[in-house]
Amino acid sequence: MSSEIVNSINNIALNNDEDFVDPWNVVSKSDTGVDYDKLIQRFGSSKIDQELLDRFEKITGKKVHHLLRRGVFFSHRDMHTILNLYESGKPFYLYTGRGPSSKSMHLGHLIPFTLCKWLQDVFNVPLVIQLTDDEKTLWKDIKLEEAHEMAYENAKDIIAVGFDPKKTFIFSNLDYIGPDFYRNMIRIQKCVTFNQVKGIFGFDDSTVIGKIAFPAAQATPALSTSFPHIFNGKKFPCLIPCAIDQDPYFRMTRDVCPRLGFQKPALLHSKFFPALQGAQTKMSASDPNSTIFCCDTPKQLKNKINKHAFSGGQVTVEEHRKIGGNCDVDISYQYLRFFLEDDDKLEQIRKDYTSGALLTGELKKILIDTITPIIVQHQERRAEVTDEVLKEYMMPRKLEFDYK
Amino acid sequence: MSSEIVNSINNIALNNDEDFVDPWNVVSKSDTGVDYDKLIQRFGSSKIDQELLDRFEKITGKKVHHLLRRGVFFSHRDMHTILNLYESGKPFYLYTGRGPSSKSMHLGHLIPFTLCKWLQDVFNVPLVIQLTDDEKTLWKDIKLEEAHEMAYENAKDIIAVGFDPKKTFIFSNLDYIGPDFYRNMIRIQKCVTFNQVKGIFGFDDSTVIGKIAFPAAQATPALSTSFPHIFNGKKFPCLIPCAIDQDPYFRMTRDVCPRLGFQKPALLHSKFFPALQGAQTKMSASDPNSTIFCCDTPKQLKNKINKHAFSGGQVTVEEHRKIGGNCDVDISYQYLRFFLEDDDKLEQIRKDYTSGALLTGELKKILIDTITPIIVQHQERRAEVTDEVLKEYMMPRKLEFDYK
Repeated sequence: MSSEIVNSINNIALNNDEDFVDPWNVVSKSDTGVDYDKLIQRFGSSKIDQELLDRFEKITGKKVHHLLRRGVFFSHRDMHTILNLYESGKPFYLYTGRGPSSKSMHLGHLIPFTLCKWLQDVFNVPLVIQLTDDEKTLWKDIKLEEAHEMAYENAKDIIAVGFDPKKTFIFSNLDYIGPDFYRNMIRIQKCVTFNQVKGIFGFDDSTVIGKIAFPAAQATPALSTSFPHIFNGKKFPCLIPCAIDQDPYFRMTRDVCPRLGFQKPALLHSKFFPALQGAQTKMSASDPNSTIFCCDTPKQLKNKINKHAFSGGQVTVEEHRKIGGNCDVDISYQYLRFFLEDDDKLEQIRKDYTSGALLTGELKKILIDTITPIIVQHQERRAEVTDEVLKEYMMPRKLEFDYK
Repeated sequence: MSSEIVNSINNIALNNDEDFVDPWNVVSKSDTGVDYDKLIQRFGSSKIDQELLDRFEKITGKKVHHLLRRGVFFSHRDMHTILNLYESGKPFYLYTGRGPSSKSMHLGHLIPFTLCKWLQDVFNVPLVIQLTDDEKTLWKDIKLEEAHEMAYENAKDIIAVGFDPKKTFIFSNLDYIGPDFYRNMIRIQKCVTFNQVKGIFGFDDSTVIGKIAFPAAQATPALSTSFPHIFNGKKFPCLIPCAIDQDPYFRMTRDVCPRLGFQKPALLHSKFFPALQGAQTKMSASDPNSTIFCCDTPKQLKNKINKHAFSGGQVTVEEHRKIGGNCDVDISYQYLRFFLEDDDKLEQIRKDYTSGALLTGELKKILIDTITPIIVQHQERRAEVTDEVLKEYMMPRKLEFDYK
C-alpha cells in the first residue's frame, strides 16, 4: 500500500475538532472554514507556492489566473511534472468531472470549470469531462433516468463556461461506458481491494456493491486509452483540476496507475466554495437558501445575498465604523475573491471593509454588481446551447490538439 | 432479505463432512460425488421429478432429453412457470454462459450447451450466451487480453454444438458491455450490499472490488432490456440452464429482479461432470490429466480413459467376475450416462458391469467407442467455425423468433 493510500486512511480517523472532508461531506467547526494547510498535510499533497506560480508564468508566458494567484486552487500533486511536459513540448490532457446533483449548477460548481477553461486555453490541450450520473443514482434515492437527465442539464451549464468544442469531450457514464472504458475499469478494479476503498471512502459491509465498484469509474478517465477516439489507444499523462474533496478518488487512481503502466495523474485542488450562511460548509445544491444557482434571476440573486450572505460586519453602523468588519468570515468578501478579477480593487475593498469605511450593505452591493453580469452572461451563453450543440460536445469523436 | 438469499448464506457455513460447492470450487468427501438431494435442500431449489418431466413431454410433444430423464439436470426453479408460458404461447428466452478457462473446452463444458441446444430446438426461442472474460481476468492471474482470446476460442466450441445462428447471440463481456448493459448492471449493483455478496460468495475485506461488483455482470443478461437489439427494450422472462455451482449468482439475481420490475429467471441445474480420477471433484481444465478436452485426438482420448478413468471394478478379473463392479463410482459408466443416448443399452451395461459379466477394460472400450465419434464430429464442426461464422454469432443483431 502506497503512502498516499495510507494518508487517505488517516483521513477517516479524525479527531472531533478536525474538519471532515470526503467526496460527499464537508464540515468545518471554524468560522473561517476548513483548515487547508492541515488538509494538505493529511492528504499528503503539496502546497501551490509562489515558486510554482512563478514557474507557471515563466513557462506559459501568461499571468496566472486569479483563482491560482489567490490560492483558491491551493494544493497540487505533480504539477511540476506537467510544466516539464509543457516546457518540452510533450502532450498531455485535462480531465475533470461533475456529479450531477440538480437540474441547474450553482456558483461553486463553476469554479473548477472556470480554471479548466483557462488551462485549456493556456496549454492548448484536450479536455475530457465526466458526468457521473451512475454515481448519483447509486448515492441518492433517484432513478437512473433522473440522474441521466440532470447530467444533460449540467452539461449545458458546463458548455456555457466556453470550452472549445474542438478540444472538449463531455460524456455521461451511463451513455459512454463501452468496451474500452469497461476494460480499463476492470483493470483498475482488479488492483483495489475492499479494504482499500473502506479506508479511503469509509464504506462498510452495508454499502451496496455499486458504490464499492464506483471509484474505478471515476479513476478510468485518467487512463487515456479509455478514449480511443481521442487518443487512438496511446498513453498520455493527464492533469486533473478538481475540488479537494475529490482527492480520495485520485489518490486511489495514483496508486493504481503505475501498476497498469500509466503515469500518475497530476492534480490541482481547489478550496470549497462556501455556503451563503458561512464557510463551515460548502455550497450545496440540495439547500436552495444556501445556494446561488446559475439559473437564478438577478432579483433572486440580490435577495439571496442581501438576506442570507453571512456578514463579517458589526451589529450597528456606529460599531462597524469603529471596529470594522472581518473579511475572513464575511461571505460577500469571500465570494469576491472568486469572482472579482481586479486585484487592486479587491485589496481596496478588503482594506475599507476591515477599517469600517465600507458597510456590509455596500459590500453586498459590490458583490451583487459583480456577480449579476457574470450570471446573466452565463445564462445567455447557456440559452445558446441547443440540443444540437450539446450533441456536438458529447459525441465520441476525434479532438483537435496541437502541441508546441 | 429473501429466503433464497438466506439459504445461500447457510451454504457458506458448512459442516466439515459436507460437500463444498461454490462457483469456483466443488469438493465432495464421497466416492459417489456430491449429495445432490442435500444440495437441493441447502440451495432451496426444487427437484426435477417425474411429474415435471411428464408435463414437459405432454406440453412440448417431445420425449425429454436423456440429460433430463437421467437426472443429470436434477434441480430447477420455476420450471413450471416456463412451461405455463410455453403452453399459453407467451415468449421467453434462454440464457447461459461460460467462464473461459482454457483455449479448448472439455467434455463437461458441453453438457449445459447440449441441453441448451435441445431446449432452443424444442421451444424455438432465442438464446443469449455470456462469455465472462471479465470474471476470468479478475479471478485468475491472467491478462485481460488472454481471457478475451480464450472467450473467442471457447465461442468456437460453443458454436460447434450446433446453435441456430438466427436465434443465438454469443457475447464476450469485454466486447459487449455498453450503455444498455451497464445501466442494468448499475440498477442491480444498487440493490445488493457487500454483506449479501459476502454471504453468497464468501468474499472478505481483502477481495478486490472487481470481484465484489462482478455478480451483477452475470445477473444482467437475465434482464432482457440488456439486449435492445434482440428484445427492443421489452421485458421477457428467461430460463437459465447451468451447472448447480452457478446457482449462487442466480439466487442473487432472483432476489433483485422483482425489485427492478422484472420476473425472476427460471433455472435448470445440472450435476457436475466428474473428473477422470473420480466423482469427488468436477472435471477442470486446469488439470489436463483429469480432463478430456474437446480438442483431444482419438488416441489421447483412448489413453486418458484407459489410464486415468477411475474404475469401480475389482482388482483381478476373477474377483470382478465374482463380486462385480460398482457403477456408482465407476467414471466410465458415469460418462456413458452423459453421452450414451440409448437407455436400453445403458441399462444392459449397468447390469453386466454390476454382475461382473462386463470387465473394466470392456466398459472402457464402450466408453471410448461412444465418445470418439462425438469428439471427432465436434472437431469437424468446430473446424467449420471460421472467423466469419464467429462474427455472425457475436454480432449484436436482431434475432429471429417465432412463438407458437
